Amino acid sequence: MRNRSVSSQEDSGFGKSLTESARLVNTDGSFNVHRIGASWSALSVYQWLLTIDWLLFVAIIIAYYIASNLLFAQIYYWIGVQHLKGIEVSESAWDNFWHCFFFSIQTYTTIGYGAISPNNWSTNVLVAVEALVGVLTGALITGLLFGRFSRPSIRLGYSENILIAPTKDSFSGLMCRIVNLRSNRLVEVEAQMMFSYIDPNEVQQTGKRIFVNLPLQVTKLQYFPLSWTLHHVITEESPLWGLAEEDFANIKAEFMIMLKAFDDTFMQTLYTNTSYTWEQLVVGAKFVPMFYPDASTQQIVLDYQLLSRWERADLVAVS
Amino acid sequence: MRNRSVSSQEDSGFGKSLTESARLVNTDGSFNVHRIGASWSALSVYQWLLTIDWLLFVAIIIAYYIASNLLFAQIYYWIGVQHLKGIEVSESAWDNFWHCFFFSIQTYTTIGYGAISPNNWSTNVLVAVEALVGVLTGALITGLLFGRFSRPSIRLGYSENILIAPTKDSFSGLMCRIVNLRSNRLVEVEAQMMFSYIDPNEVQQTGKRIFVNLPLQVTKLQYFPLSWTLHHVITEESPLWGLAEEDFANIKAEFMIMLKAFDDTFMQTLYTNTSYTWEQLVVGAKFVPMFYPDASTQQIVLDYQLLSRWERADLVAVS
Amino acid sequence: MRNRSVSSQEDSGFGKSLTESARLVNTDGSFNVHRIGASWSALSVYQWLLTIDWLLFVAIIIAYYIASNLLFAQIYYWIGVQHLKGIEVSESAWDNFWHCFFFSIQTYTTIGYGAISPNNWSTNVLVAVEALVGVLTGALITGLLFGRFSRPSIRLGYSENILIAPTKDSFSGLMCRIVNLRSNRLVEVEAQMMFSYIDPNEVQQTGKRIFVNLPLQVTKLQYFPLSWTLHHVITEESPLWGLAEEDFANIKAEFMIMLKAFDDTFMQTLYTNTSYTWEQLVVGAKFVPMFYPDASTQQIVLDYQLLSRWERADLVAVS
Amino acid sequence: MRNRSVSSQEDSGFGKSLTESARLVNTDGSFNVHRIGASWSALSVYQWLLTIDWLLFVAIIIAYYIASNLLFAQIYYWIGVQHLKGIEVSESAWDNFWHCFFFSIQTYTTIGYGAISPNNWSTNVLVAVEALVGVLTGALITGLLFGRFSRPSIRLGYSENILIAPTKDSFSGLMCRIVNLRSNRLVEVEAQMMFSYIDPNEVQQTGKRIFVNLPLQVTKLQYFPLSWTLHHVITEESPLWGLAEEDFANIKAEFMIMLKAFDDTFMQTLYTNTSYTWEQLVVGAKFVPMFYPDASTQQIVLDYQLLSRWERADLVAVS
Repeated sequence: MRNRSVSSQEDSGFGKSLTESARLVNTDGSFNVHRIGASWSALSVYQWLLTIDWLLFVAIIIAYYIASNLLFAQIYYWIGVQHLKGIEVSESAWDNFWHCFFFSIQTYTTIGYGAISPNNWSTNVLVAVEALVGVLTGALITGLLFGRFSRPSIRLGYSENILIAPTKDSFSGLMCRIVNLRSNRLVEVEAQMMFSYIDPNEVQQTGKRIFVNLPLQVTKLQYFPLSWTLHHVITEESPLWGLAEEDFANIKAEFMIMLKAFDDTFMQTLYTNTSYTWEQLVVGAKFVPMFYPDASTQQIVLDYQLLSRWERADLVAVS
Repeated sequence: MRNRSVSSQEDSGFGKSLTESARLVNTDGSFNVHRIGASWSALSVYQWLLTIDWLLFVAIIIAYYIASNLLFAQIYYWIGVQHLKGIEVSESAWDNFWHCFFFSIQTYTTIGYGAISPNNWSTNVLVAVEALVGVLTGALITGLLFGRFSRPSIRLGYSENILIAPTKDSFSGLMCRIVNLRSNRLVEVEAQMMFSYIDPNEVQQTGKRIFVNLPLQVTKLQYFPLSWTLHHVITEESPLWGLAEEDFANIKAEFMIMLKAFDDTFMQTLYTNTSYTWEQLVVGAKFVPMFYPDASTQQIVLDYQLLSRWERADLVAVS
Repeated sequence: MRNRSVSSQEDSGFGKSLTESARLVNTDGSFNVHRIGASWSALSVYQWLLTIDWLLFVAIIIAYYIASNLLFAQIYYWIGVQHLKGIEVSESAWDNFWHCFFFSIQTYTTIGYGAISPNNWSTNVLVAVEALVGVLTGALITGLLFGRFSRPSIRLGYSENILIAPTKDSFSGLMCRIVNLRSNRLVEVEAQMMFSYIDPNEVQQTGKRIFVNLPLQVTKLQYFPLSWTLHHVITEESPLWGLAEEDFANIKAEFMIMLKAFDDTFMQTLYTNTSYTWEQLVVGAKFVPMFYPDASTQQIVLDYQLLSRWERADLVAVS
Repeated sequence: MRNRSVSSQEDSGFGKSLTESARLVNTDGSFNVHRIGASWSALSVYQWLLTIDWLLFVAIIIAYYIASNLLFAQIYYWIGVQHLKGIEVSESAWDNFWHCFFFSIQTYTTIGYGAISPNNWSTNVLVAVEALVGVLTGALITGLLFGRFSRPSIRLGYSENILIAPTKDSFSGLMCRIVNLRSNRLVEVEAQMMFSYIDPNEVQQTGKRIFVNLPLQVTKLQYFPLSWTLHHVITEESPLWGLAEEDFANIKAEFMIMLKAFDDTFMQTLYTNTSYTWEQLVVGAKFVPMFYPDASTQQIVLDYQLLSRWERADLVAVS
């Protein structure tokens, strides 16, 4: 992930003649692409279960647990409640069904109190089936829980805006700020920024999207204990040189950020990306520092609340 | 995985004097090699269970479950059904056996209703053995299910054919198209193409296979949101220069594709490969585009059904 | 991790104007940073449970087990002990409660002796809930235990002190010693040393911290079977050149060590770091060798007790 | 892992003044080092359980299962067999103990038939403890089984001998042969060979071991479907140039092989190494080919039995 421009050997991967004006990369880093004709598999259901919200995940497990026990209860009920020893056969179908349901629960979870037990061939066979399903379900839930927790992930906080701020030597710079939201340690953090826009000469016609890398002042951190302000200096060589605030909207500018880091808790290389569109760009502003030394504790204090905080800063006029 | 030719320091790994005309790499990427004298281990059985089809996998688990319970049932039966308290000893051996079987199920899965329970030393010992087997089996199934789901894998779709299409500047190009069949995101995708053929000068005699890399126009994508058409331009330097359609069959041409990508769901580098033989080559055809912007949703639409779709396109004559 | 100085493209990741005099990196390699405003998630609890001490981990599991069973027992007790068949209702509320508790244990762990069993709708429903909680807990504990054990980790021993020792050619060298405390094999071990100090010209005012790499004589080992003495030769180019013993305290010197290694048991790249401050620096000392050949067993003996052992060694005067 | 000689920046990791004549690396790739003063941890026990033989592993599980149940049985017995409802108290202490043991089994594995059940406070508490131990043990066994199976590993077969064979251009070459013993696919296989010997000028005195890389003709394979003969050409630049057969014993020659490969089943980089000493060197021999095309099946046949097979081949005289 060197700071090269997109060379002839490399490509952004987005088509060269995309004319739509929607963003290419969503804020959460996903691609703004709609896939049709794709198939699904057991694996894709599993991976979906890995990524959904915890609340939904627990709700699905509970629903599955109730549904499968209702199903088995129904079959026991069909076979006949008199074949489950220990159930006092009631005149109420409702009562009989619920006895079947609770017997099913006791079998599925392999509790097996024995106050109710199967006493003919078909209930015994159904018990054998249900117990296997119960064991497989337990195995699946174990795998899913472990999978959800052990899935390598990176949670970076990005400033809400991307700023154009004055820098020394009367240049201005494009800046956004990131911070590690986890308490794990990231080392060897590398960043890359890509600028995508519609060719201003063709904006009126069927505009062609152009992709170009924006070199960063610092592209790699050895440690990442604090925050990091990604900084592209807008020199004469920069594709941003000479662009006025309103130009960014005209050319439907999008800034794509890619980050790679080594997580030394799980000893894995992690990758993440995000994107800013022209609506998130603020021209003439700089970030308020988000860390400071604390004399009393002799520690550095890092305040996450300040991540997106900026203040006005007039740009030096660039011709 | 740079785009170099196979240098003196590197080698394709296939022998230098293979005379057979069969393909070297199968369509699924496996090697067309028959191994004799190899041994197997517990690990190879496990890995086989990881890779087989889901239907077969579930069938094996069910078969194993029934078989091991039949085995334990048989031993209980040998010990004597009268040593299992709660079974009404029947005159029918069949009935007695099935009681043993269902007791075995209740023990193996650790349900233990208790309507039947062991009441002498040998049945108790057998219960101790069976319960341990049951626990180990549950552990194994948990591991297998998790292993099957968490196994890193890449599912790329390859176009059925590899085409020789006209390109600009009156050159033609060798092209095949790939797409990510999963919904996970792939980044830093690198491709390499290798061309293998039997030396035309020696085709009549014991032909020697030659391996040479085909440089691609683009060898690396930063993102892989859409499809990617691998493209080797057939310039004068290309080993394909001047080959007529019928030549490819004569020299038993095979095109081997290798791909490497970083999956940012599981944060892993994935690798896959495939191969096209001369029978899959179509000369004078180009791919129909498989993605287009959708003005209504402001998204890009990617249609998997079009992956292998091509249309005729006359080549510019090359001398 | 080449031996370069921190170039314009790279950065240590620590702020450039930190004035506090506390250490930046603690001995265990963690950053001396206090984070405020950060949120926590299910994942962060899980990761905390992965990293805590075994004793605390087991204590938490036991506490959780008792607490959740007390909770369920309390609900059974509220529903009424007469709805649990098999409990002889006592006049002592205490006795009744403990019967509920033990019934809860039998349900939670899915033992289900059946001497006590639920016999109305509400106890049966509670059993269904408790059994699911029990299964989920079992799944979580399985995941946590596996997670704790399979978490990739590196345990290097560092010498307690960092020494300045005489070396040949009348130069002196900065040295610290490391050893692999695990029995796993590490290969391709790479080391890097960074020197951080407060600019001596500004020590009186608001001192600015400076970070500079110290080139090592050997930066990479192919194997790591024995100990390794990291060695920076203090030549005229070294930032340590000409510094007297008392200077290190004045400039609040800190030496940060980063190590990367490939563990060939788990086939993973591991990363670790530590830091020495001026208080741990000993000028005019060298390490006592910690390995020697054993003629009787024809093996090399590596004695971990000698890791931090040094002896006095006068430095050659450097101007 | 380029083919460089051990530069000033790199080191073999073995001490520079080892005088013992024993081998440095054992045939299985482990280091011939004896560590004293090292401590062990829960993790090291776990990792030991991952690497031991399957037979020993199963034996340990069975022993642990019996031992812990004997322990719990003993405590139940101390509490008093009359506190386990359902046991007919016998006059034989032996009978009473075994009833406790079998009750313990039913509790530990959470079967809980209920024919025997706890009926006072202390047995109930013990049941609560034992059930938790049982659940934790199940979790541990699940983790261990999965850990054993999912541990990344490479199983290469090495030829028993390393040969010096005649090659074309009247040079001779040092050769050993490797093959993948697994059915998984290895790609991007890289090899490195290191030569270690005692300086011939100092063999009489306290000899110093020298380490030097031996450049290989091919250092990297793209695929590894067949066997690979590592080949160092003994040119005038080679440290082996001019060495006679008996010299290798005098200088206690050792050839260390390091291999790195990417396993595309588990998508992991694997590493392995081995070592040959002068006793395994055969001068004037070449390997018999171990693969050949099979005309009938149109496949390449790879015969593992031939891995170490060599035949005599006179060397061309080298001055």
